[in-house]
Amino acid sequence: MSIINTASTTRADLPSLDLMFPQELISLEVSAQLPSDLQIRPLASTDYKRGHLDVLSGLSVVNDLGEVAWVNQFHAMRATPGAYFSIVILDKASDKIIGVGTVFIERKFLRGLGSVGHVEDIAVDKNYQGKKLGLRIIQALTHISESSGCYKTILNCNDTNIPFYEKCGYVKKENEMAKYAPERVNNAPKL
Amino acid sequence: MSIINTASTTRADLPSLDLMFPQELISLEVSAQLPSDLQIRPLASTDYKRGHLDVLSGLSVVNDLGEVAWVNQFHAMRATPGAYFSIVILDKASDKIIGVGTVFIERKFLRGLGSVGHVEDIAVDKNYQGKKLGLRIIQALTHISESSGCYKTILNCNDTNIPFYEKCGYVKKENEMAKYAPERVNNAPKL
Repeated sequence: MSIINTASTTRADLPSLDLMFPQELISLEVSAQLPSDLQIRPLASTDYKRGHLDVLSGLSVVNDLGEVAWVNQFHAMRATPGAYFSIVILDKASDKIIGVGTVFIERKFLRGLGSVGHVEDIAVDKNYQGKKLGLRIIQALTHISESSGCYKTILNCNDTNIPFYEKCGYVKKENEMAKYAPERVNNAPKL
Repeated sequence: MSIINTASTTRADLPSLDLMFPQELISLEVSAQLPSDLQIRPLASTDYKRGHLDVLSGLSVVNDLGEVAWVNQFHAMRATPGAYFSIVILDKASDKIIGVGTVFIERKFLRGLGSVGHVEDIAVDKNYQGKKLGLRIIQALTHISESSGCYKTILNCNDTNIPFYEKCGYVKKENEMAKYAPERVNNAPKL
């Protein structure tokens, strides 16, 4: 009982945050399973300062363009309602982000004009690994996807991570093929 | 010369169509390589009548909800500018769609707030196969993705289709993992 009360996040815990989407879309069950010193919630417009990109840098090239550009991207994503759902796990004591992930929802003409959730860019601070936080992020994002009516949720991963995603309820389906743009385009900053 | 003139599509060919995005984003090079009796262009709001879902039904479950619902989905996609780019290949004589494909563009916080193009739902009418139309669709979608500044374009395919996508300039990267929603959600029509 006390675990649920301390670990779950309510509106009262987020008095002044400008969130990407409503906190109600975060699974209460997942919130309750987090250690009590951590909090899971939607990405907020002030999360650049809490180290959002620091956590992502453990996953891939970040190329930080600064806070103003980051905030603009946050607002551009939120301007397409029902599309982007980025979440974070915070260490409450330090007010630092230590886990991140996103699901974005694609509309289709197939499957009764159905939708598919694409899970992207999952990362956990290396000092917080071994606490099942990756699993919690996947569970929370899958919950958002399925609550939004997606008939399936997909993600791409390397061979090493297949067993982890199988534990999350996913099965290997197909192959991801990629084509990188010519270097000139690749390195051009977006305006 | 005459091949280019007849096969490429200009604004003059599309006098009254309500398109998902501007025709200018369709590669002129790809247009010019099509047989002269075919035309490649953005999806139009009246393409339900031209058999858009008939072509998609060769790929997956369509579950046709009727024209009004289809048009609503078209407008919902277009209401998120820079996100959805669905294209079609038409047989000019019959005014029927015989090839389809979509790329949608995902914004990220990684890679200098970069974008990734996701190629989805490629299908060609079985009576028109063997004319490299699948290749043309992939080339056109990749052109849209790269022109939009995406640092990479990705897609998922089964083992059999890997050589085809390699010919399109793609390489196998990772594994697609999928989780299907519970049946109750899966079959629920979207409101």
